[in-house]
Amino acid sequence: MTANTMGRFITVEGTEGVGKSTNMAFVKQWLENKRHSVIHTREPGGTPLAEEIRELLLAKRDESVDSHTELLLMFAARCQHVYSKILPALEQGTWVLCDRFTDASYAYQGAGRGLGFNKLKELEAWALRGFKPDLTLMLDLPVELGLERAQKRGPVDRFEEEKIEFFSKVRQGYLDIAASEPERMKVIDARGSVAEVQQQIEQTLEKFYQQVAS
Amino acid sequence: MTANTMGRFITVEGTEGVGKSTNMAFVKQWLENKRHSVIHTREPGGTPLAEEIRELLLAKRDESVDSHTELLLMFAARCQHVYSKILPALEQGTWVLCDRFTDASYAYQGAGRGLGFNKLKELEAWALRGFKPDLTLMLDLPVELGLERAQKRGPVDRFEEEKIEFFSKVRQGYLDIAASEPERMKVIDARGSVAEVQQQIEQTLEKFYQQVAS
Repeated sequence: MTANTMGRFITVEGTEGVGKSTNMAFVKQWLENKRHSVIHTREPGGTPLAEEIRELLLAKRDESVDSHTELLLMFAARCQHVYSKILPALEQGTWVLCDRFTDASYAYQGAGRGLGFNKLKELEAWALRGFKPDLTLMLDLPVELGLERAQKRGPVDRFEEEKIEFFSKVRQGYLDIAASEPERMKVIDARGSVAEVQQQIEQTLEKFYQQVAS
Repeated sequence: MTANTMGRFITVEGTEGVGKSTNMAFVKQWLENKRHSVIHTREPGGTPLAEEIRELLLAKRDESVDSHTELLLMFAARCQHVYSKILPALEQGTWVLCDRFTDASYAYQGAGRGLGFNKLKELEAWALRGFKPDLTLMLDLPVELGLERAQKRGPVDRFEEEKIEFFSKVRQGYLDIAASEPERMKVIDARGSVAEVQQQIEQTLEKFYQQVAS
C-alpha cells in the first residue's frame, strides 16, 4: 500500500472549554465533504479497554495518584488505541480524527505536572516508536475564559478540578510544542465566534489538504 | 535515616502453582520472629488504584491486549505501589514482602510474550529509577507440575489460560535473570515437600540476614 492510499491522522488539542467537540464535528464534516471515510475517536479511550483505563484516570479518589502512574496509564490507553484501532484504520485508507493525543500528555503531565518534556519523549519513543499525527489543531484560549466555559457544562472531573496556574502551564506547554513543530501543530485562536474559529480551521485544513494531495 | 534503619524489600517470584502463598507466609513469620515489622503485599496491586489496574489486567476480554499496553499497565500499577506504599514503608523501617515484582514483567512480558529484556530495561529505568528488591526468592518448578497444581485451585485468569510453551519461556526468563543477578535472585527448588522447600528458604534468609545485619 502506498502512502497516498493511507488515511491521515488529525488530532485536536487544547485546554478545558476551548470548543473541541464543536470544532471536531466541523472537521469531520469537512473531510467527509472531500469524500473521505472518517472515524472520530478520543483519548484517553477509543477501545473498550482504553475506555476502562480512561475511567480509572478520571475518577476522583482519596488516593493521591503518582505522576508516573498517571502517565503510564495514559500511554497504556494510547498504545491500545493506536495498535488496535488507529493504525488499522489508517492502513485501510480511513482518516482518523482524534480528540487529544500525545501532545496532551506533554502539555498536562510534562508541563502541567512538571515531569518535563524529556521524560515524555522517552516514554513516547518507547511506546509509539515515532508514530505522530499528520496534523494537530491546537485551539487556544486564555485559561480563565476556557474554565468559565467548561464550568457551565456541569460537574468537573479530576483534571478539571485543577487550579488556574496548572492550566496556564498546560496552555504554555501546548504553545511550546507548536513553536517547536510549527509544520505539524497549528494554533487556532479560539476567542472569536464559532464562525470565526471555523474559518481559521478551514483555511488550515485547505492548506494541509493541498500538501498531502500533491 | 541511615541504611541500617531502613526496611528491606523481599520479593517472591515463580510461575503458576509453585507455592508462592504458602511460602510467603513462612517468610513473613520468619522475619517477624526476628522482631521486624513486616507488610505483605502483591503485584499487580497493593493500593486501591493498583488493584483496579490489576482487575483490568486479569479480566478475560474479547479485545486482544497489545503487549505494550499490558506492560504499561503493569508499570502503572507498580509505580503507584512503589511510590505510595513500598518506599514509605521501607523508610519507616518496615520490611516489605511482595508477591511478584519487576522480575515478573521481565519473565512474563519480556520472555513469555517475546518483548525482550532490553525493552523491559528501558521501561524499568524510566519508571523505577534503579529501585530493586534487596532479595528475590524464585520458586522453581517444572512448568507441567506447576500448572497441574494451579488448575486444582479453581478457575483460571487471563494469564493462567496461556499454553505450556508460554510458561516454559517465562520460567526460562526467570532463570536467565537469576543467572545474571545471582546475588539478588536465589532459585529455590520447589519440587520437594513443603518442609524441604522451606528449609532451603530458611537457609537463604539466614545468609541474607547475616549480610544485611553485618
